[in-house]
Amino acid sequence: MTSSVTTLARRAREASYEISLASRATKDAALHAMADALLAHEPALLEANAEDVSRAEANGTPPNVIDRLRLTGPRLVDMADGLRMVAGLPDPVGEVVRGSTLANGLELRQVRVPFGVIGIIYEARPNVTADAAGICLKSGNAVLLRGSSSAAVSNAAIVDVLRVAAASVGLPEDVIQLVPADSRETVKELMTARGLVDVLIPRGGADLIRSVVEGSTVPVIETGVGNCHVYVDAAADLEKAYAIVLNAKTQRNSVCNAAESLLVHESVAGTFLPKIIAGLQESGVTVHGDVAFRAFDGVVEATEDDYAVEYLAADISAAVVPDIDAAIAHIRRYSSGHTEAIVTEDQRAARRFAAAVDSAAVMINASTRFTDGGEFGFGAEIGISTQKLHARGPMGLPEMTSTKFVITGDGHVR
Amino acid sequence: MTSSVTTLARRAREASYEISLASRATKDAALHAMADALLAHEPALLEANAEDVSRAEANGTPPNVIDRLRLTGPRLVDMADGLRMVAGLPDPVGEVVRGSTLANGLELRQVRVPFGVIGIIYEARPNVTADAAGICLKSGNAVLLRGSSSAAVSNAAIVDVLRVAAASVGLPEDVIQLVPADSRETVKELMTARGLVDVLIPRGGADLIRSVVEGSTVPVIETGVGNCHVYVDAAADLEKAYAIVLNAKTQRNSVCNAAESLLVHESVAGTFLPKIIAGLQESGVTVHGDVAFRAFDGVVEATEDDYAVEYLAADISAAVVPDIDAAIAHIRRYSSGHTEAIVTEDQRAARRFAAAVDSAAVMINASTRFTDGGEFGFGAEIGISTQKLHARGPMGLPEMTSTKFVITGDGHVR
Repeated sequence: MTSSVTTLARRAREASYEISLASRATKDAALHAMADALLAHEPALLEANAEDVSRAEANGTPPNVIDRLRLTGPRLVDMADGLRMVAGLPDPVGEVVRGSTLANGLELRQVRVPFGVIGIIYEARPNVTADAAGICLKSGNAVLLRGSSSAAVSNAAIVDVLRVAAASVGLPEDVIQLVPADSRETVKELMTARGLVDVLIPRGGADLIRSVVEGSTVPVIETGVGNCHVYVDAAADLEKAYAIVLNAKTQRNSVCNAAESLLVHESVAGTFLPKIIAGLQESGVTVHGDVAFRAFDGVVEATEDDYAVEYLAADISAAVVPDIDAAIAHIRRYSSGHTEAIVTEDQRAARRFAAAVDSAAVMINASTRFTDGGEFGFGAEIGISTQKLHARGPMGLPEMTSTKFVITGDGHVR
Repeated sequence: MTSSVTTLARRAREASYEISLASRATKDAALHAMADALLAHEPALLEANAEDVSRAEANGTPPNVIDRLRLTGPRLVDMADGLRMVAGLPDPVGEVVRGSTLANGLELRQVRVPFGVIGIIYEARPNVTADAAGICLKSGNAVLLRGSSSAAVSNAAIVDVLRVAAASVGLPEDVIQLVPADSRETVKELMTARGLVDVLIPRGGADLIRSVVEGSTVPVIETGVGNCHVYVDAAADLEKAYAIVLNAKTQRNSVCNAAESLLVHESVAGTFLPKIIAGLQESGVTVHGDVAFRAFDGVVEATEDDYAVEYLAADISAAVVPDIDAAIAHIRRYSSGHTEAIVTEDQRAARRFAAAVDSAAVMINASTRFTDGGEFGFGAEIGISTQKLHARGPMGLPEMTSTKFVITGDGHVR
């Protein structure tokens, strides 16, 4: 029996053959047509979204989740602008990654090619639907979008608009398809569509990502869980340290590159702890500390779980460490491998930390909040990989591609 | 309960911290010490191997498998030479893959770093034990080697020698460890050691690779299954085509880059088929053909299975196709995505084939046998990836690494 998702995946595979060979001009025209179409269909898209929002409200969904679900005129403009920005980025497909002429005269080129079919599994925000579709299209891939059931009506409306726009420039509609969100089964079918889906990218909470990683036979790129640390070294400039810790924790606490844990070298703890605890508490942050931190008012006890968790909230775990090696050991034990920062004026400490901490990004005297495709100048970002295979850190268009070797000879044999 | 493999993996993780920071000089010294030690312990290694060989003979193992299992003085010299060659290759660790100074003054560098702990699951040949250990060590990784039970005594002896040699230059012995081959359980434990093992590389037959891909929660790099095609185009130089088909099929038929299937454009079939069928048959190859090929003596019928299989033997499936698109469609249907070749003097056909065929390597007027790390000039090769994620095609030292971003600021906040 052929499941519905398998049928969608087969269509995606067929469409992928065409989009993989499409010129940059065609793909950019599609992206602009998609942007135009989102704006032209504003009333219908907002109406579809209103259905999702009122269902969510009736179900007692928390206001912050409703806010993420809601589409507005300005948010549609942002989605359209995002598509136009992707159109402006260089096409990764066809880039020659390396090349040489071998001793026997064979000409070797390693060339970027699309993956083929990408599956994206994501949560509430309907803007991801347009963002992901745009990035996959520009990188020459067909995409299967599996959003959350709470945004099902919005996603269906957006995908309809985008498909018609893609077809208007001659691409197959099936380069963009929505996978029904009516049951968990459709996620399972995506995860086991080996041979039809080339890569799966889950975007969302730790539970979603774990379940995809464990259940998938399709290769997965893990994204986003960030238990990020800031280590304030013995040689830290404490003013920089104060600014970095506050920024990393409080500039936006619901994101994966926010700091979740603070480590302070014991030699500066006496000076730094009172200041940073006061600063964090004035910003509404609850400090979960070890015994040294708990000498201060309002600091609550940090359990093992506190050090391991990604709060995504106005909480921070904190501990005093005897030296940089203890900070590194703590990070090795608890980090999710996203981003860790050291604040120090000591070149040796900075080098040691950068070499020994095995995370996607290591910041020296900078906030963890900088780990971001936009900040890195990648233009577009599909997510932040926290795995070591294929892509690590913010993923832009080149990370949405594979490569192949093309070897040209003149009758060469071994 | 902690399994034995988990204990080995924990030790590998600890050792990986040291080897990841080791200088090239130390790693190269270790490789030379390992090469010296293999030669110094020749009698003991050959004695250990003789145990495996006589057990295999007693079990009625076929002679070609016994040949692969057997160590000899010259084969030990080859293993030692392989280690010295790896010592001579550039160290991939620390290579800056990209870098820039951002608008806000942050200095961004993306740097190659070791994976950490690599698990290799492989079959009979004991020389893989030294090859894989050398490549993993040079790329800064700790390795867990899970060979076959038939080579257990040889592998244990080789690993003992290599560990002592690595320790002689100050590296932890546990950068190289052998996983017991006494049960299938140890493979399962390796496949589920998520968080302790960073990547698994299965090397061997299609069944081994499929079972690892399907059962593993650790990221896997698939290697080696090659159902490789040669397509002889309407515009082929038929002398080149003859030489390439014969070379691709017969130069060595037990390897993954040997040709397994021949497709011929109908406009040249009348001239080419009699010649190539005679040539293949004179070389002892059985041709499994479609109706057009079966017009010739000795050609047997090609079933659906014949087109799908990797023979690794003196057999080839064959069909006549009406045009290049039919050849591409046939390859999309049956290929394992390893290597496909076109023989043509027509630039348009060559471009079309290279763009539309989605395999790790596409050869234009060259034998499929060139898909090889040594031929490509990579120096060392751990295998040939047939997946699209992370590495595709022959994998050398750089493919045994991940990257991380190191960002340097001066108190930068967002």
